[in-house]
Amino acid sequence: MEKTGYHMTPEQFREEGKKVIDWIADYYENIEKYPVLSQVKPGEIKASLPTNPPQKGESLDEMMNDVTNKIMPGITHWQSPNFYAYFPANTSFPAILGDLVSSGFGVQGMIWATSPAATELETKVLDWLVGMMGMPEKFKSTSTGGGVIQDTASTSALTAIITARERVTKFESNKKGNPQKLVAYISTQTHSSIEKAVKIAGIGTDNLRLIDVDDKFAMRTDLLKKQIEKDKKEEYTPFFICAALGTTSSNAIDPIKEIGEICKTENCWFHIDAAMSGTAMLCPEFRHFQNGVELADSYCFNPHKWMFTNFDCDVFWVANREELINTFSILPEYLRNKATESGEVFDYRDWHIQLGRRFRSLKLWFVIRHYGVEGLQHHIREHVSLAKKFTGWVNQTKDFEIFVDPPLNLVCFRHKSSDDFNMKLMNAVNETGKAYFTHTKLNGKIVLRMSIGQTNTKEKHIKTTWDLIQETAEKLHLK
Amino acid sequence: MEKTGYHMTPEQFREEGKKVIDWIADYYENIEKYPVLSQVKPGEIKASLPTNPPQKGESLDEMMNDVTNKIMPGITHWQSPNFYAYFPANTSFPAILGDLVSSGFGVQGMIWATSPAATELETKVLDWLVGMMGMPEKFKSTSTGGGVIQDTASTSALTAIITARERVTKFESNKKGNPQKLVAYISTQTHSSIEKAVKIAGIGTDNLRLIDVDDKFAMRTDLLKKQIEKDKKEEYTPFFICAALGTTSSNAIDPIKEIGEICKTENCWFHIDAAMSGTAMLCPEFRHFQNGVELADSYCFNPHKWMFTNFDCDVFWVANREELINTFSILPEYLRNKATESGEVFDYRDWHIQLGRRFRSLKLWFVIRHYGVEGLQHHIREHVSLAKKFTGWVNQTKDFEIFVDPPLNLVCFRHKSSDDFNMKLMNAVNETGKAYFTHTKLNGKIVLRMSIGQTNTKEKHIKTTWDLIQETAEKLHLK
Repeated sequence: MEKTGYHMTPEQFREEGKKVIDWIADYYENIEKYPVLSQVKPGEIKASLPTNPPQKGESLDEMMNDVTNKIMPGITHWQSPNFYAYFPANTSFPAILGDLVSSGFGVQGMIWATSPAATELETKVLDWLVGMMGMPEKFKSTSTGGGVIQDTASTSALTAIITARERVTKFESNKKGNPQKLVAYISTQTHSSIEKAVKIAGIGTDNLRLIDVDDKFAMRTDLLKKQIEKDKKEEYTPFFICAALGTTSSNAIDPIKEIGEICKTENCWFHIDAAMSGTAMLCPEFRHFQNGVELADSYCFNPHKWMFTNFDCDVFWVANREELINTFSILPEYLRNKATESGEVFDYRDWHIQLGRRFRSLKLWFVIRHYGVEGLQHHIREHVSLAKKFTGWVNQTKDFEIFVDPPLNLVCFRHKSSDDFNMKLMNAVNETGKAYFTHTKLNGKIVLRMSIGQTNTKEKHIKTTWDLIQETAEKLHLK
Repeated sequence: MEKTGYHMTPEQFREEGKKVIDWIADYYENIEKYPVLSQVKPGEIKASLPTNPPQKGESLDEMMNDVTNKIMPGITHWQSPNFYAYFPANTSFPAILGDLVSSGFGVQGMIWATSPAATELETKVLDWLVGMMGMPEKFKSTSTGGGVIQDTASTSALTAIITARERVTKFESNKKGNPQKLVAYISTQTHSSIEKAVKIAGIGTDNLRLIDVDDKFAMRTDLLKKQIEKDKKEEYTPFFICAALGTTSSNAIDPIKEIGEICKTENCWFHIDAAMSGTAMLCPEFRHFQNGVELADSYCFNPHKWMFTNFDCDVFWVANREELINTFSILPEYLRNKATESGEVFDYRDWHIQLGRRFRSLKLWFVIRHYGVEGLQHHIREHVSLAKKFTGWVNQTKDFEIFVDPPLNLVCFRHKSSDDFNMKLMNAVNETGKAYFTHTKLNGKIVLRMSIGQTNTKEKHIKTTWDLIQETAEKLHLK
C-alpha cells in the first residue's frame, strides 16, 4: 500500500484483466443458456445490492462474483444470437478490444491538441467510410464536409436541427433565441428522436409537421409539397426535413431523391437518418435505397447498431462543415492553443453538443481492419438473406402473414387473428427465454418484428425461433 | 472460417485480449517515458494512415503495432502523473475493467426492460453517492429525486436548462417553442457549456446574463439581485441560475447558499455545476463549500474527472424527477412494454437527450468497491495536500506569485514578469515533454494553471515539475 496508496498496480491489472477477458469469453460461449429477455421483476436487482457503499475496498473477485450472481439475472442479452427485438446493438470482439485500448489511453479528445491522434484517426476512418458506402465526396474532410462520431442518432438529429435553425436565421437564433415561425417536416413513421430534438431546440412540436405515408410506410412527397405550400401561405418558414433510410417501426425507406429535391427548392436543411440501415450501404447492391443522397446536408448512421461496433458510435456527416462549426464553436481562454488558432486542425468539440469526448474511432478502426470491407459485406448480406428466408417461411403458412415486404433485415409479420392474440403470442415466446422479439403498430394493427442482425445470428437460430413461434401459436389456440 | 464467417472466436479473443491487457499494463509502466504533450504537427498522424480501408481483414497484431507506432506519437498522455493541464480526466484499472465488462455485455439500457440490471445498478450507485457526498436526501431515488449518468457536464447543463424552461412555461415550450423573454444567469467565470446550452435550447445568448465576480472570482450576489430587478422591470422572466462549485478557469466557488435563496425567491431553477470539484465532497472537511446545496434543483459532477472513473461518466441529480421525466418523455409504440406501463420502473431514456445508453454504472460501481470510501477520500486528500505544498513553494520564491489561493487542487500562479513571458515559459516547459500544464486569463492577465489531480501524481512529480518551471524561467530570462 505504501507506494501506490489504494490504486491497483499494473501487475495486479495484468492478472485481474486476464480473468475478466476469460470471463467475457466464457459469457459468449454460454450466451445461449441464458433467457434472452431478463426474467426479473421490478426492484429485484436493486434489492439484492447493499444499501450502503463499502467503507473499505473489496477485491475484484468479489465484484466479478456479484456480476455473475446479482447482475447477470438482470441482463437482457443483446449479444445473444436469439435477440430479435428492437434493432441490433452489436458488438464484436475486435470492437471490445479497440474500446479497451481507448479506456487504457484515457485521453480526452475535446480539441486536436489534447490528443491529435484521437482527432485525426476519427477524420481518416470517417473519410474511409464515405468511400466504403458510396457516399458523395462532399462528405469527406478533404472536401467541404467531414464526419464526426456522435453518441447516438438522437444527438445527430439534434445537431442537424440546431445547425439548420442557425442557417435559416442567418446565425441569429443562437444570439436572439429561436424565432417562432420555423417549421420542420418528417413522416408519421419517423423516429421519436426528431420530436425530442424539436422540443429541445425550442422549435416546439406544434411546428413539427407529420406527413402521411404510402402503403410501404414511406413519406408521401405529394403531401409534403402541399403542407409546405400551406405553411408558406400562413407565413411559416420551412427549414428542416428529415428522411428516414429505414424507419424503426417497419424499416420503411423514404424517397430520398424526391425529398432532397424539395429541400433544394424550398431551401430546407436535408437530414438523412439511416441509423440501422446505413450499414447496408457497405454493399453496392443496396445503395439504390439512397439514390439522391448527394442532395443531403447531413447524414447519420450507427455502426453501434448493425456494424459490430459497440455502443456508442454514431457517424454524422455534413456537406458543409463551416455551418456546423459556426453553430457550435465556443473558444474560452482556457482552451486557446496554437494549433486551434492556426486553423489547420479540427477541434471536434465544435462539431457537437458536448465538450468532452472519448477516443471512439479506435474501436471502429479495429472493426474495419479486422473484418476488411469484404468481411463486413459478407455478414450484412448474410443477415439480409436470413430475413428473406424467414419471410419465405411466413409466406408458406396459412395462419401468419408478412405485413410489409422487408427491404433489408427487419421482418414485419403477424398472426392473422386478433391484435390481442399477437401480443399474447409475443409475450408467451419471450417468456420462454429462448428468443426475444418486439412489436409495433402499423395502420392501427399490432405487427410483430423480427429484427435479424445480431452479430452471431445464423440460420439455425431463426429456424428454431420460427418453430417456437408456430408451436406457441398452436398451443395458445388450443387453450 | 466455416463456422463463424469473419468473426473473431471466443478462443481467439482469450488470446488477443490478454495481449491487449499486457499492452495496457506495459503502457502504464512506461508512461513517464513519453512526452506528456504530443509533439506531432497537424496532419502528421493522418498522413501516416492508408488512404483506403483494407479489402481483406488484418490481424490484431498488425493493429496493435500501428497503435504503438502510428497512434502513440499523437497521444497526449492524460494518464501521465505529469499531466497538469485543463483538469484531470482520470481513469484507473478498476474503472477500465468495469468498462470492459460493460463492453462485453453490450446491452442497450434505454429502458428498464432492455436490461433491468443496467437501470437498477445505476439508481443504486447514484443513491450511494448521495450519502457518500453528504448530499440532501431529496436527490435519492427513494425520495422525490434521483440520479442518472450523463455523458458530460455540458449535457447535464443542457438537460437542466430544458427542464427549467419547461417548468417556467408550465410545460408549454416543448409544444409551442421557446418564448422570447426568458433570461438565465451565470457568472462571468462560468463554464462555456452553459452558453452553448442556452444557444441549443433556443434561449439565445442575448438572454444570458453574465454577473461580475468578486476578488476570488466568485459570483457577486448583490449584482445578481440588481440584474434580476432590472430584467423584471423590462418584463423578462428570470428562469435559471447556475452556480459553479469550482470554475474551470480558477476553481472559484460561487456562494451556493445565497444564490440558492435568490432562486427560491425568484422562482428560478437552481443548477449546481461541480464538474471537477464535486469529487472533493467525498471528504466531510470540504463540504462547507457546498453549504446550501439543499436549495438546488439539480446538481452535476464528473467522476470521469477526479474520481478515477474513465470517460464518460457525469452524475446528474434532480430534486424532482417528475419535472425531468415530463420534459423528456416520449413513448412510441415500439418501446411500449409492461414494466414501463406499470410505472414501477425508471426508463432512463426519459431522463436525458439521447435514447440509447451504455451500461456505465458498472465502472463506477467497480471504482467505489475497489477503493472503498476510505480509499477515495485518501487520494482526494493527497491531491489537495499536494496543491497546498506547491502553493507553499511558489510563495517562497520572489519571481513567482500565487494569483488566487487554491480552495482545492488547482493552483493558479504566474511569473511576476509579463504575460508574454508567462506564455513563453509555459510553451517552453510543455515542449520538453516532461510535464504539461495550461493557462487561463484572470483580470486580464495570463495565469498559469497547475491542475493537480491525476490518478498517479505523487509529490516527486510536482517537485520535479516545479524545478523544471523555475529552471526554464531562469534560462528564458538569460536569453
